[in-house]
Amino acid sequence: MELAEVPTARPGQVVVRTTLFALDAAARLFLGDVGLPLPRLAPGDVVPGAALGEVVASTDPDFAVGDEVCHQLGWREFAVADAAALRRVDTAVLPSPTAYLAPLLTAWAGLVVAGELRPGDTVFVSGAAGAVGGLAGQIARLRGAGRVIGSAGSPAKVAHVTGTLGFDAAFDHRDGPVLERLGALAPDGIDVYFDNTGGAQLAAAVRLLRPHGRAVLCGLLDRQNGPRPGRADGEEATLDLGYAIANRLTLRGLRTADFADRRAEAEQEIGPWLAAGRLRLDETIVDGIENAPHAFVDLLRGAFTGRVLVRVVGQPDDKADLSPRDE
Amino acid sequence: MELAEVPTARPGQVVVRTTLFALDAAARLFLGDVGLPLPRLAPGDVVPGAALGEVVASTDPDFAVGDEVCHQLGWREFAVADAAALRRVDTAVLPSPTAYLAPLLTAWAGLVVAGELRPGDTVFVSGAAGAVGGLAGQIARLRGAGRVIGSAGSPAKVAHVTGTLGFDAAFDHRDGPVLERLGALAPDGIDVYFDNTGGAQLAAAVRLLRPHGRAVLCGLLDRQNGPRPGRADGEEATLDLGYAIANRLTLRGLRTADFADRRAEAEQEIGPWLAAGRLRLDETIVDGIENAPHAFVDLLRGAFTGRVLVRVVGQPDDKADLSPRDE
Repeated sequence: MELAEVPTARPGQVVVRTTLFALDAAARLFLGDVGLPLPRLAPGDVVPGAALGEVVASTDPDFAVGDEVCHQLGWREFAVADAAALRRVDTAVLPSPTAYLAPLLTAWAGLVVAGELRPGDTVFVSGAAGAVGGLAGQIARLRGAGRVIGSAGSPAKVAHVTGTLGFDAAFDHRDGPVLERLGALAPDGIDVYFDNTGGAQLAAAVRLLRPHGRAVLCGLLDRQNGPRPGRADGEEATLDLGYAIANRLTLRGLRTADFADRRAEAEQEIGPWLAAGRLRLDETIVDGIENAPHAFVDLLRGAFTGRVLVRVVGQPDDKADLSPRDE
Repeated sequence: MELAEVPTARPGQVVVRTTLFALDAAARLFLGDVGLPLPRLAPGDVVPGAALGEVVASTDPDFAVGDEVCHQLGWREFAVADAAALRRVDTAVLPSPTAYLAPLLTAWAGLVVAGELRPGDTVFVSGAAGAVGGLAGQIARLRGAGRVIGSAGSPAKVAHVTGTLGFDAAFDHRDGPVLERLGALAPDGIDVYFDNTGGAQLAAAVRLLRPHGRAVLCGLLDRQNGPRPGRADGEEATLDLGYAIANRLTLRGLRTADFADRRAEAEQEIGPWLAAGRLRLDETIVDGIENAPHAFVDLLRGAFTGRVLVRVVGQPDDKADLSPRDE
């Protein structure tokens, strides 16, 4: 392993020592050709993602040594950043520091803005055991959805989705045709589909969306291990946008950065849910930055539920203020 | 042929003798199983569509014998309708009666509302020689699009699209891979795609839409002769909604009825364009209701450009006030 020097701060910059960073399965899309117009990482680049840390040097008046901050600078022990790239952790806004590493805005904006969630809606979330999906389903319920259905990739995850996360129903998308499984759980159709997978689940959801239904295209779990355009799992995998005309559907691709101006509003709504224990952060901690690559591969293989956080060795545990794990 | 009796009006109803009615290729979707949740016509049903006529009997104070009206009651010589289903033809609003048979609201709402057209946008319209597509491309230009590209199904139609209709560029979608043809005409990508076909053209457009691009899903010319889900024209026909995430695209299915509340606004904008000759109604007249079925088949085969209107025999020509044909 090549070692990098600890960076020093130029005027206006801040040096942050990482406490925890999050693994994001979507980073896989940057690690090779998946046939999409996305940034590509080159050897030596830092894998991007959310991180928490402590200021160890600062030339900016807004940040002092010892401040707890979060940023998006990814897998690294130290980050040197412009002050504008940092955000102070404030437990009066989100009660747990690790909430700053959760994809809260992605789930919230996907449902509220892109998905135009309305009270009473039937919502389907694929990848429901994942970090984004688990939050999306819970937020849908807290926002008054009539029925929230999830899918996941194993019986244990299905049990987690209905048990721990409180979805109304869930199914294993590997267990038979998605169209049949979803149709049985949503006999009257769905209003909002929060898509974390693409593929056969998207194709099935498009068929089952009711008039004026919305599909929020957020993730590509179904292909994150490489490009699979044109794969055929049978009829159900064929995406038929004739349904989008017949039923006046809207499909919207979601990138969280587009909703930065809604972050304060989202956190104002979500903070009290977290503080009251009504919204659960599903987190797994992996110790040691040296274990991040292996954990990332495990994440892609579906070994985890929820958010996977890497604790960077050398940080005192008493500063990490980790939420207890449920499992 | 079975003959129906001339209907009589109950209180509040109006009897209209048809002058002209429009053929709509989309009616094909109601004439057999195309695998979509759409109404099905049964033998004896009237084919729906826009019609012009003259009031011949009225029990409603708002309509008098001799009034020229339009309605959506389709292929018939006489219609008996509630007054609410009729609209008076007013040449102060739209200068030609046949403009009331043109899919003006479909084209306008598709671009302006669903497509969120902005000045300077590059717009691609498939089915550009058709009634909806020809209007959509012209309206895009009149609304300040930077570049308007069309596709059609023959060299003659391509010439019509750029010549008569004034598109900036056009190509024959049967002449080589759509992705290459469209990419060559829109090297910097497109902002709005007005989809009248689905299929390979939709798949290509999704790849070429720029960040925050919009696809308006309006028609299914590509499959109107029957269901063809899963057809493979090669790679380009594979619809990859990973692009919708990567480029934050929005795809919206359009049904004109949803935009009835915008009709007055659309006509207020379009009327002066028609009056000034800046927007061209591309119309073909077929004489005789008995020729409608054959003309409909010809329409599905791509024999026409623009709107095909059937003149119902027995109406005095001097009342029809037809716009002169251009060809």
